[in-house]
Amino acid sequence: MSLLVVGSVAFDAIETPFGKTDKIIGGAGTYICLAAANLTDSINVVSVVGSDFPDSYLKLLKDHHVNLDGLQIIKGGKSFFWAGKYHNDMNTRDTLVTELNVLADFDPIVPESYKDCKYLMLGNLTPSVQKRVIEQLPNRPKLIAMDTMNYWMNSAWDDLMDVIKLIDVLIINDEEARQMSNEYSLVRAAQKILTMGPKYLIIKKGEHGALLFDKDNVFFAPALPLEEVFDPTGAGDTFAGGFIGFLAKTDDISFDNMKNAIIYGSAMASFAVQKFGTDALIGLTQQEINERVQLFIDLVQFDINLV
Amino acid sequence: MSLLVVGSVAFDAIETPFGKTDKIIGGAGTYICLAAANLTDSINVVSVVGSDFPDSYLKLLKDHHVNLDGLQIIKGGKSFFWAGKYHNDMNTRDTLVTELNVLADFDPIVPESYKDCKYLMLGNLTPSVQKRVIEQLPNRPKLIAMDTMNYWMNSAWDDLMDVIKLIDVLIINDEEARQMSNEYSLVRAAQKILTMGPKYLIIKKGEHGALLFDKDNVFFAPALPLEEVFDPTGAGDTFAGGFIGFLAKTDDISFDNMKNAIIYGSAMASFAVQKFGTDALIGLTQQEINERVQLFIDLVQFDINLV
Repeated sequence: MSLLVVGSVAFDAIETPFGKTDKIIGGAGTYICLAAANLTDSINVVSVVGSDFPDSYLKLLKDHHVNLDGLQIIKGGKSFFWAGKYHNDMNTRDTLVTELNVLADFDPIVPESYKDCKYLMLGNLTPSVQKRVIEQLPNRPKLIAMDTMNYWMNSAWDDLMDVIKLIDVLIINDEEARQMSNEYSLVRAAQKILTMGPKYLIIKKGEHGALLFDKDNVFFAPALPLEEVFDPTGAGDTFAGGFIGFLAKTDDISFDNMKNAIIYGSAMASFAVQKFGTDALIGLTQQEINERVQLFIDLVQFDINLV
Repeated sequence: MSLLVVGSVAFDAIETPFGKTDKIIGGAGTYICLAAANLTDSINVVSVVGSDFPDSYLKLLKDHHVNLDGLQIIKGGKSFFWAGKYHNDMNTRDTLVTELNVLADFDPIVPESYKDCKYLMLGNLTPSVQKRVIEQLPNRPKLIAMDTMNYWMNSAWDDLMDVIKLIDVLIINDEEARQMSNEYSLVRAAQKILTMGPKYLIIKKGEHGALLFDKDNVFFAPALPLEEVFDPTGAGDTFAGGFIGFLAKTDDISFDNMKNAIIYGSAMASFAVQKFGTDALIGLTQQEINERVQLFIDLVQFDINLV
């Protein structure tokens, strides 16, 4: 089933207690695509880079059946660049550089060949840009999922409220859910956010797992306890990519199948943090993915006979 | 199966954003007993109070089939008293008062009638006191579980290392596991702590659930997402009481049954935080407990067919 991914394709430079990288391939759109590519083929991306973006990175995406017809390459422009440094506990980081560059004026154009998309994943971007993508689709996709962040809650609240009325699944972290709802309890936060538009809300809690809510149900997926987190960059985007990739592959948007999609998203994220950048998402075999998902099954399954 | 609980029986005074209490019944031993009493009968307690401890509280314990033969009542003595105030997020608190009183000189004496105990739960106490209890038992119990805290790691490390060599299950929180092992990763922390004596380690993560480790396996139990946490006091002790109470009732200490015990412990803790002090642990019906456990099943169960 065709999946359309909209999100940044960019450079990252990452420093963790385990080492540091030069400028490497990064961006929400990249992580989403490479995670989804492990589960489904036929991925279309809408994004923008500068002419400084190396052919080898474009080839990497193409080799993972990511169609780049919707990737604008701005001649003489520079690609979005983010640099960050993680603290020792890996749970907090300082942003050292944010250069929007070509992303500052990004006008997303959905190619004709993408317009029959059935699954749409809107990575974290200006809400008005996210909305312009939806408006270009002649037929509403079967499922629209979207990420956002505190920054847009502070700077573009009305636009954000506009776009979340149009989507199905909002994917944010616990801090963002609390800010968006002005509720500390995540249960109350979810109740409130589900009145704002989305039918489903996923609250990511990093190393503490993720919650899926609809009006009547709640599901919790753990994160895998790992010996070592090497680089958390892109874990949330990888989770989203695994989630939407699994849904696109199975083409089943029931609550029960969304549970499975979240387990697959969590499994992809558990790979991502074990190497720098996108490295761990490259070259995974189906068997490795299955074994990882089995670890999640073993981690939480129990068998109680109620008395 | 006979269960011996050793832990403080005391007064608490609690302030949360929702209100405050006068001196009410509290203490680790109290929470453990009242939680376990919802799952098993025949509970023996070893503890100490002063003559200021009201008959009504003693009756409350007796009414929950807690045998008080091992409860020393020190004439003219004052009971242990703790007062605390929770911050708005309920995850942090200030201790306002800690009066050890009769607990300062507590010499635990295990009555003859308790000595055949099969399950032993050592609540958080001076490690040397915990050890003296074990030494009085002529036959080693089938399972010994124990709680401790940072304070003893700082002030009585050697005694703590002595006693954890004698037990089966150590129950601590994430911060304590990190301090005890000097490892940030909980997986590594568990590996290290399991070389110090205990065969099983439970790491409590509060609202983020709990992990059970043995040398070869790991299990994760979520906490129930709640609309409101009213008073977190005693949640960890209630968890331990539910855990050991379920094991004593089912008399099965396999890893698989420990998973179930952790779910029951988590269920009891989810009740505890919904009212002040021990209130929520009183008068629970079997049906209410079953319904709560069913919520945990619904929260985490999924059914993936690996491809």
